[in-house]
Amino acid sequence: MGDLRALWAARSVAVVGASTRRGTPGRLAVEFLQRYGYTGRIVPVHPTATEIAGLPAYPSVRAAGGVELALILVPAAAVAEAVDDCGRAGVRVAIVGTAGFAETGAEGRAAQDDLVRSAAVAGMRLVGPNCIGSAGFATGLVASFSPLFAALTPQSVGPDSGPGLTPGGIGFASASGALGFGTVSLALERGMGLRAAVSTGNEADVTALEALAELAPECVALMGYLESLHDGPALRALAATGKPTTLLVAGRSAAGARAAASHTGALATPDRVVDGALRQLGITRVSDVDELLDVGDAFALCSGRTPAGPRVAVVTTSGGSGILATDAIVLNGLTLAELAPSTVDALKEILPPYGSADNPVDVTATVMRDRTLMARALAAVADDDGVDVLVVCFCVLVGSDVDAIVAALSTVEKPVLVARTGADHLAPTAAGALRAAGIPSYPTPARAVRAAAALIGAASRAPSLPARRAESRGIPPGPTPRPPESRAEDADEDAVKRWLAAAGVRVPRGRAVHSAAEAEQAVREYGEPAVLKVVVPGLAHKTEAGGVLLGVTADTATAHYHRLAGLPGATGVLVEEQLSGGVELLVGVAPSPLGPALTIGAGGVHTEALDDVAVRLLPVTEHDVRDALGQTRVARLLAPLRGRAGADVDAFVALVRRVAALAANLPPGTTLDLNPVLVSASGAVVLDAALTQEG
Amino acid sequence: MGDLRALWAARSVAVVGASTRRGTPGRLAVEFLQRYGYTGRIVPVHPTATEIAGLPAYPSVRAAGGVELALILVPAAAVAEAVDDCGRAGVRVAIVGTAGFAETGAEGRAAQDDLVRSAAVAGMRLVGPNCIGSAGFATGLVASFSPLFAALTPQSVGPDSGPGLTPGGIGFASASGALGFGTVSLALERGMGLRAAVSTGNEADVTALEALAELAPECVALMGYLESLHDGPALRALAATGKPTTLLVAGRSAAGARAAASHTGALATPDRVVDGALRQLGITRVSDVDELLDVGDAFALCSGRTPAGPRVAVVTTSGGSGILATDAIVLNGLTLAELAPSTVDALKEILPPYGSADNPVDVTATVMRDRTLMARALAAVADDDGVDVLVVCFCVLVGSDVDAIVAALSTVEKPVLVARTGADHLAPTAAGALRAAGIPSYPTPARAVRAAAALIGAASRAPSLPARRAESRGIPPGPTPRPPESRAEDADEDAVKRWLAAAGVRVPRGRAVHSAAEAEQAVREYGEPAVLKVVVPGLAHKTEAGGVLLGVTADTATAHYHRLAGLPGATGVLVEEQLSGGVELLVGVAPSPLGPALTIGAGGVHTEALDDVAVRLLPVTEHDVRDALGQTRVARLLAPLRGRAGADVDAFVALVRRVAALAANLPPGTTLDLNPVLVSASGAVVLDAALTQEG
Repeated sequence: MGDLRALWAARSVAVVGASTRRGTPGRLAVEFLQRYGYTGRIVPVHPTATEIAGLPAYPSVRAAGGVELALILVPAAAVAEAVDDCGRAGVRVAIVGTAGFAETGAEGRAAQDDLVRSAAVAGMRLVGPNCIGSAGFATGLVASFSPLFAALTPQSVGPDSGPGLTPGGIGFASASGALGFGTVSLALERGMGLRAAVSTGNEADVTALEALAELAPECVALMGYLESLHDGPALRALAATGKPTTLLVAGRSAAGARAAASHTGALATPDRVVDGALRQLGITRVSDVDELLDVGDAFALCSGRTPAGPRVAVVTTSGGSGILATDAIVLNGLTLAELAPSTVDALKEILPPYGSADNPVDVTATVMRDRTLMARALAAVADDDGVDVLVVCFCVLVGSDVDAIVAALSTVEKPVLVARTGADHLAPTAAGALRAAGIPSYPTPARAVRAAAALIGAASRAPSLPARRAESRGIPPGPTPRPPESRAEDADEDAVKRWLAAAGVRVPRGRAVHSAAEAEQAVREYGEPAVLKVVVPGLAHKTEAGGVLLGVTADTATAHYHRLAGLPGATGVLVEEQLSGGVELLVGVAPSPLGPALTIGAGGVHTEALDDVAVRLLPVTEHDVRDALGQTRVARLLAPLRGRAGADVDAFVALVRRVAALAANLPPGTTLDLNPVLVSASGAVVLDAALTQEG
Repeated sequence: MGDLRALWAARSVAVVGASTRRGTPGRLAVEFLQRYGYTGRIVPVHPTATEIAGLPAYPSVRAAGGVELALILVPAAAVAEAVDDCGRAGVRVAIVGTAGFAETGAEGRAAQDDLVRSAAVAGMRLVGPNCIGSAGFATGLVASFSPLFAALTPQSVGPDSGPGLTPGGIGFASASGALGFGTVSLALERGMGLRAAVSTGNEADVTALEALAELAPECVALMGYLESLHDGPALRALAATGKPTTLLVAGRSAAGARAAASHTGALATPDRVVDGALRQLGITRVSDVDELLDVGDAFALCSGRTPAGPRVAVVTTSGGSGILATDAIVLNGLTLAELAPSTVDALKEILPPYGSADNPVDVTATVMRDRTLMARALAAVADDDGVDVLVVCFCVLVGSDVDAIVAALSTVEKPVLVARTGADHLAPTAAGALRAAGIPSYPTPARAVRAAAALIGAASRAPSLPARRAESRGIPPGPTPRPPESRAEDADEDAVKRWLAAAGVRVPRGRAVHSAAEAEQAVREYGEPAVLKVVVPGLAHKTEAGGVLLGVTADTATAHYHRLAGLPGATGVLVEEQLSGGVELLVGVAPSPLGPALTIGAGGVHTEALDDVAVRLLPVTEHDVRDALGQTRVARLLAPLRGRAGADVDAFVALVRRVAALAANLPPGTTLDLNPVLVSASGAVVLDAALTQEG
């Protein structure tokens, strides 16, 4: 088995720092291992005690021998020795719960780095430090001191005594221990079953991403809480497992990212890169704990039933819920299914006159008088080939009315999600019965539709990784001329444009000149009016520096040439045909912690103000580029309008793919900025281009 | 008392259609009145029975006499007679629960109109039809057949037997009965107390808005679910009560609005008008049932503590929760409070080294060992003058750890909201103890912050209505010249612009000409290049019709004049100075069901594609205009950028206010479109203008 499996499946667990005093973390951890039926060997490690909680205690892990997993809870100063002991004892995974490492500053970071080195030398994986441990739900292996495990009901006590350590198909990992086990408690409260929960704390070695990838083969769905996303290979490995994955990545805002960095000392990846990368890799991103559970639950319960498309039918006993569901369908970019005329006719036969036989289908409160009504209406809707997913809403129905609906729902083979907007005590068995039937249920129509949108999005956006690679390989990369020098002092618009042109990327006709006569000749050649631009290696904002002159004619070329050539640092003047008309976009490639990232979106003078871009990691497929473009608002300006022809989107997409292919061969740390790229009915042309190198 | 108070405070209630058969709505309604300690007179009305559920029954309301409120549950065909009976008997309010009226089509609508007329003749108010009734929580007056009232615990049984009919300070009204009482059940499950809940169904007479306004004097906060918002005076009356009000208005999407119309047959107000009107009137709009309860609860619990500003401090036992709260603060447009150096110093003394003494303040899980830590940290943060609101987060803490935090929170005088991300069973008494201390609590940091944002928004955006009126009156309206004819066949850009100019609104220099010689003369007068525009009364899209020519010189004026004058329907040619440079906005005034509405936002050729506008009802204050502008993305383009001067926002705001003042005097049904309005550093100029009249 993979080493990390020890976190939930080890046959022997040591608690290093086990305590003889009740209520301390070191004692609780031992008791939690005893509490949930763990059948492996439990090894309390204590300097002097020979027995703790009825178990033989040992002075060291080595003295005990045969330990696969160790939970280290000794004070920070003693952690290094404990890690060393575990390493020498052949432990596979050591969990360091103790805080006081990288999160406290440079000294703590150095101590943490030492732990990682020590573990690596021993061939041992290290979880934490500053974490709350992990739990295997099927094995009862609770290697954690979270107070949650004092409050759950042990299996032996029976199912009606509150939530227990419910095993199931969801794998969960969290960088935050407290929030992570809080989230676990809410999952168990909903009746969700978990395979394992792992908290990774400072992620000195093992990250939540890696834990999830290791959990994938044993799980039907994965959920994670992260405070940073900077390990590109681990992210791709997770995506490659193909398991539906839902991530809550905190630190969206700059202030939140700063707080995250101070919390665990992690690198910050710009949020739009995180967003683009997750979408590209088919991982569902959510923005709150509620949504993490809503979506994770839907993936787990509906794992056998993948939506065939985005067409959602709503069946409701309450007109109000139907309207809210419809609003949510539109808001989430789904399609309100258009029912076949035969379906509508069938529903008209079934429903009372004040119902609605069209989508949203309102079966009305008459379901309370006619127990077969819901089943008949559901059958009619589910049989419609134009329906991919059903969202079924009801509100204050109680007792056997709800039982009848649940029975009817259980017969539907397409994915079904339920919104039951009513207190639990009105139908105490409803949620459990729905869960047993594989139907996720939510308190509001909007939440049910949001979960449906995640199912539909994952089904539509995640072609398998091999297929994506094949698409990427299938595209002839075209010429990839050697890039120009790109250190800041060497950046030169003319050189970058010649490089782009050589690779088949369209740039304006033009050339660099070094005399007024040449300038005038070039203007005559390219046609009036022309553009003159100063060439100053390393100058980022030519326009603001007065280095760009538009509308130059042959008559004015000499005067304008001298004006530009006289600017500080000028090494020449670029004369180009003046193009206009069209939409100004930007195309950029820049380094990110996840690898080179492509940015496309609104360009020109309003780039910063509009902040309207989408990002994808390189390499990109055609699908990636079109999907990213579709996420921007500026893309709407490319469509035909009032008889005016639309822009040549295909040309722009081809340009982006050429640029992405070129950028793949640039040295690490290179930034390529094409802004603006003018896109019109006659194609896509790079009007300005810069290449810069970090450091 | 106002008539509608009978819905929750009547001293006598008739159930018309009371039934001798158990389990029927007509029997349940009688039993519900008996179940919750209602001390008034209960009058079952039945054609033949003399006793129902132990109460004397009467053949008619008139026969019983002295009835204030009647709940009518007879079949649709018998409703008219029942309403007539109630009217003659002097009933104040008749609730018609029966369905089968306007929601079924034209015939049903006619029958419904008859009910309204019959009630009006008798001076009686009518609630419904097609509703589920109402409930007074303090009086136990349940005039409803909702199954909810079979499931709540009567007061007599005791408080530990599940939710009862908890009285409190929240007034609730809902157009949907099932969703409304479902929402009520969720409110009671949270421990929220209500004054009354009213379902209004088809709203043939009484609307949810009106019910809320009537409830206002008796409530600390109001919540409503609406499926249409078309009664401007009722909306303004509700806002004028000054009670914090939260509305969930369904039908945001076009498809949702169609579903709403088919559900209750209500008029649809464009969603952006709804959005703008609610914001303008200081009413908080939410988008889901969860959020309605989250925000309504915060308004009710924090009613004595209004946030002084938007600066939020986060105090958390979990780093993860602190990051999520910080993200939410930024996302909601609030300010992460900057703590005073003295506060940070004080916190450093209090917190462990791996905590964080800066906002978000991480007190860490050490609160489990040190019971006074949270209280000391909270006191330090709450004493900071730079903090307006506290959001306090914790996760899996249990039992007495939670009690210590609740005790500490109870001493804070500033508004506090709690995020406790953990299952209920971990701290079963926490929510109740927090509620008793006037502190709302939520399962996630994002939801706590969202509720805080509603408190802060309401406090900052809702100057009292009299103050708003005074501001409106205080602005000298300036000249209001008589508007030009605005029927479609008379629309004429030149006339509209002269009217605007006379009112002090800047338009380009220009005039209409009727010969080539005049055109050439005008071009010389206004300077080259000039603009020539065809004048065709009623032509909406001049540019698309080839009716606008830019860059006209004196030399080309004759040819261009003839080209335009030859277009079909041309009555002249407008010659104007050609202005450029700046941002193209739009300013429009159009009729809406809520009254004339002002729209401002992104203009020019991209108006439809960008769909970037904000709306306010007339009249508007300066605050309204600036606030609306701030809601658009295009407003960012008006700011200074890289040394380029910013646009003259003041001039634009003044222009909008002049236009709004002018529009107030236009005949009903008039639409005024100014698009584009060119806004630059040198002011705001209306480049194109049209005035059209409905029908």
